[in-house]
Amino acid sequence: MTAISKELREATARLSTEARRPLAGSRKVYVSGTPSDMRVPMREIRQADTPAVFNASPNPPLVIYDTSGPYTDPDAEIDLMHGLPGIRGRWIAQREDTEELTGASASFTRDRELSDQIAAVRFPNRPLPRRAIGSSCVTQMHYARRGIVTPEMEYVALRENLRRDEMRESYEKAALLRRQPGQSFGANLPETVSAEFVRDEVASGRAIIPANINHPEIEPMAIGRNFLVKVNANIGNSAVTSSIAEEVEKMVWAIRWGADTVMDLSTGKHIHETREWILRNSPVPIGTVPIYQALEKVGGRAEALTWEIFRDTLIEQAEQGVDYFTIHAGVRLAYVPLTADRVTGIVSRGGSIMAKWCLAHHEESFLYTHFHDICDIMRAYDVSFSLGDGLRPGSIADANDDAQFAELATLGELTRIAWDQDVQVMIEGPGHVPMQLIKENMDRELAECFEAPFYTLGPLTTDIAPGYDHITSAIGAAQIGWYGTAMLCYVTPKEHLGLPDRDDVREGIVTYKIAAHAADLAKGHPMSQVRDNALSKARFEFRWEDQFNIGLDPDRAREYHDATLPKEAHKLAHFCSMCGPHFCSMKITQEVREFAREHSLADDKEALATGMKEKAREFREKGSDIYQEV
Amino acid sequence: MTAISKELREATARLSTEARRPLAGSRKVYVSGTPSDMRVPMREIRQADTPAVFNASPNPPLVIYDTSGPYTDPDAEIDLMHGLPGIRGRWIAQREDTEELTGASASFTRDRELSDQIAAVRFPNRPLPRRAIGSSCVTQMHYARRGIVTPEMEYVALRENLRRDEMRESYEKAALLRRQPGQSFGANLPETVSAEFVRDEVASGRAIIPANINHPEIEPMAIGRNFLVKVNANIGNSAVTSSIAEEVEKMVWAIRWGADTVMDLSTGKHIHETREWILRNSPVPIGTVPIYQALEKVGGRAEALTWEIFRDTLIEQAEQGVDYFTIHAGVRLAYVPLTADRVTGIVSRGGSIMAKWCLAHHEESFLYTHFHDICDIMRAYDVSFSLGDGLRPGSIADANDDAQFAELATLGELTRIAWDQDVQVMIEGPGHVPMQLIKENMDRELAECFEAPFYTLGPLTTDIAPGYDHITSAIGAAQIGWYGTAMLCYVTPKEHLGLPDRDDVREGIVTYKIAAHAADLAKGHPMSQVRDNALSKARFEFRWEDQFNIGLDPDRAREYHDATLPKEAHKLAHFCSMCGPHFCSMKITQEVREFAREHSLADDKEALATGMKEKAREFREKGSDIYQEV
Repeated sequence: MTAISKELREATARLSTEARRPLAGSRKVYVSGTPSDMRVPMREIRQADTPAVFNASPNPPLVIYDTSGPYTDPDAEIDLMHGLPGIRGRWIAQREDTEELTGASASFTRDRELSDQIAAVRFPNRPLPRRAIGSSCVTQMHYARRGIVTPEMEYVALRENLRRDEMRESYEKAALLRRQPGQSFGANLPETVSAEFVRDEVASGRAIIPANINHPEIEPMAIGRNFLVKVNANIGNSAVTSSIAEEVEKMVWAIRWGADTVMDLSTGKHIHETREWILRNSPVPIGTVPIYQALEKVGGRAEALTWEIFRDTLIEQAEQGVDYFTIHAGVRLAYVPLTADRVTGIVSRGGSIMAKWCLAHHEESFLYTHFHDICDIMRAYDVSFSLGDGLRPGSIADANDDAQFAELATLGELTRIAWDQDVQVMIEGPGHVPMQLIKENMDRELAECFEAPFYTLGPLTTDIAPGYDHITSAIGAAQIGWYGTAMLCYVTPKEHLGLPDRDDVREGIVTYKIAAHAADLAKGHPMSQVRDNALSKARFEFRWEDQFNIGLDPDRAREYHDATLPKEAHKLAHFCSMCGPHFCSMKITQEVREFAREHSLADDKEALATGMKEKAREFREKGSDIYQEV
Repeated sequence: MTAISKELREATARLSTEARRPLAGSRKVYVSGTPSDMRVPMREIRQADTPAVFNASPNPPLVIYDTSGPYTDPDAEIDLMHGLPGIRGRWIAQREDTEELTGASASFTRDRELSDQIAAVRFPNRPLPRRAIGSSCVTQMHYARRGIVTPEMEYVALRENLRRDEMRESYEKAALLRRQPGQSFGANLPETVSAEFVRDEVASGRAIIPANINHPEIEPMAIGRNFLVKVNANIGNSAVTSSIAEEVEKMVWAIRWGADTVMDLSTGKHIHETREWILRNSPVPIGTVPIYQALEKVGGRAEALTWEIFRDTLIEQAEQGVDYFTIHAGVRLAYVPLTADRVTGIVSRGGSIMAKWCLAHHEESFLYTHFHDICDIMRAYDVSFSLGDGLRPGSIADANDDAQFAELATLGELTRIAWDQDVQVMIEGPGHVPMQLIKENMDRELAECFEAPFYTLGPLTTDIAPGYDHITSAIGAAQIGWYGTAMLCYVTPKEHLGLPDRDDVREGIVTYKIAAHAADLAKGHPMSQVRDNALSKARFEFRWEDQFNIGLDPDRAREYHDATLPKEAHKLAHFCSMCGPHFCSMKITQEVREFAREHSLADDKEALATGMKEKAREFREKGSDIYQEV
């Protein structure tokens, strides 16, 4: 245990403290489920009352989806060296279809365990891996199709609901339930999400619950177009010793701002150990691209890859607890030449590796030929497929071309194979696509992949803004999210230029939370507009603190506000330095309307005319100024 | 002359130096027109040759739309105390329908001229104002309808064309003309823009050329959905002495990054003088909201406003050279009560002022009743209308409501009146609108305002991200631009929170250039994709310097890149720290295709199969690594 380096111990200790600060104005609350140990976390944002000038009334706390895990709960004990509690442990064990192994099944892992050289970076409290007993299938899809509502499904239902049934009355009283008509493009967003609804979505393949039996630490979540749109953050670095703590910190930082899942794309010599640290401390599903590590194992020579090495890597990672694997099995030999005329060729790293392998061997991709074998592994641990788009376009010019859509059709074929084995599947999508070509991507994905959840990177809607690709892509992400994409992979300002740091991660996540929320609103999600309404109402009533706290990034809003306004005026000022003073006309219009109602004037026009005259006189008599005094 | 304060003289001198730095990798070029003194500025971005490994070939310079004026021309003499040269002066005079006055017509201006107190901040080289002779009309629309192609129209045609006819061949050779099919929603984007096309657009009212006869310094530009999508930047501050230089600096800074027009929303005691400094140094059209200044003149009491004061303000500003006026003449008395049930009431400052005036007097708005009189002023100076959306929604909940659309119908009615007098018109639009309701705004505007150019603020697609409203709104701006909006009013990260500083202006502009360009691409603008293709090609060929320079913000791209990569590797590295090493598979696919062609194999499939086998052997023999060496 004490073999771990002092540097790493100190780095993780620092992180533990910093990551604990609750978000401004918020507190963690828990909703209980049927199993006695089920506590579904949510974030509650407190609000001040509406002030007297706007007719004093209370404003209810807002219940917000919370991805930050135990880190923001002051009552939770956090020790990165120990990892998070395995809240799903009992649920998994009680299904009695898995067993704890006596040691790792992957030869790579066993070799690692024996090596003294990595003792200094090895996560100190590694659990023994679990696996399905015999050839049984332990996926959420398997249970769902047999009519079983798992605790994970119930958890997801409670989480997606955000206590809406309990909150509706107080939201209604505060006039927060106003809702614009949505355009859902066929998505089905029920007024209340039941556990049975979740089960049905998972059974049909329209949603996945990425939840490896070896990752009991996660707070279950669903990815599907009939749920809230989700956001993924990529982390990962070349692994020098000290960077393990950095990567764990980025994970905690990403979920703090709202990442629903995190992909660990680490490379280098401690890739296995870095992943273990992240998994044991992550309350969100972790995804990886196993071919990256397989490539490391053969010294970076794609042509030296073999099915056996890849298979061992899948088992290694599945037994660590990775929740979904990006597998580029759709990059078939015959499709590679379709990219020859492209402006930017093959830009997916995994796609390039497989294209090279195919060309070097003049053989069909082993990912494709061994797809059934891969499914066998996935179902024994409940690892979900994220079928990779290895031929996605890397530029506006290459969008929606033959190579891309040939691969998509193959992903549909593979989806069928995985579903036949009850393995959960989502489909990765582009990339770089101009706005007018985005919808075709969504429509084709739904048709050719049978409504399996779509998981897209961006898409970037222009190539001309390096340094701002979080924005070029948020424009596309909001649209494709609206059309039906279930999860959006973030893009940071450093895209195409360098590795994102902590600030870039925050910028990327918040930008993508905007895209995801704009998509939820546009689809007509029953509860999404509550938060907009609350913020708008706070804005109208000059409740500055509430405006900051209801927003996606309270710290930045406060910082920007304080940059130009004296702090004393902070909470009470009826203006900001940009919008200028408060105009009473807003209040006056309400008074006019009330006057008309009070006098029960039958005809609306007459009512208003009479009201107007009366109010005009009253208004002049009061001599009130357009600038309301503070 | 020397009455001007030392502080202000020093501040403007500093600005003059700083504003002169040309953009990285770019130089200013000029295209000549029919009048001997016509020189239409463009920016040329030089590119390096394609390196040998990608088949060595030259890459042509890119010709880019340039809004930065003489400031980025090292050969131009800049003296902010003197102002820019009046490049349109001769063209205006030669029309012989205007006359130079002996002094200002507005009583406010005449009083100002006599005041000693403002000598320290007064622009030192004020020209005498011009006005139409008698009751003649001097608008671009007037000439256009009489079949006259003005120098301004020819200028616009040359500018929009970006030398495309001369450049096509070299673009084609470098494979930069590839183009995705557009979806223009009825916009008409000709392969080449002729002066006659511009004339017809202006004559029909589908486009405006904001070009006050008292602002001869501007480089003419057009706003219309059959031209490139434009971007406006708002500047303006409370005027303490020192802030005049700051506001001029913001204007120069805004056009440097690409603002096509600038609105000066200054308030405070030196509003008249600040505007003069900005106008005399601005090569882009300047817009204002005259009611702001009129309100200052009556001590901030909306009910004290009169037509006479407003009229004097219009003449004052028209004779200074303001190119377009936001006039909230659509806020009619009867519409005010329609806002009573809104979550955020009336959020437009001009709208609030007029609503208050209407209620206080119980009378129809004097802007509406005097609209013909306003037109008489506009046509005598060629000030364009920007018909303000005083009842625009200030929140998601209020989008597309009765108040908003009632006003829009009135704006259509007013458009007809203005057009009857040959006055140019554009229509302002919202605001806060969720994605699924954006298109209705565009469709209604086109129908009810007879295709007059639409000029929108955002719209913001969610309310929940204060501090990131440049992004919430860029999502909406890109969409409404695609649907047909002609100019996008930027939103900065400080929206709702405080006054933008210089960095916020840059962030806001670049974000909106992204939205405008994404819209051009989606509409299928004939030349827009050239820049995307050039950047993508540079990216594929690892021409890092070109990637930075072709982008919207070369400085930031370079800064981000250098943050994580050692500078030595800068120009030649075939990877960045994010995307990882270069995969030869991109090259290989090209080789395969070439091999097949060389062997003239009839059947494509056979060609590829044979090619594949040959190449696979060759590839293995070479033993090339997936990581290409630098």
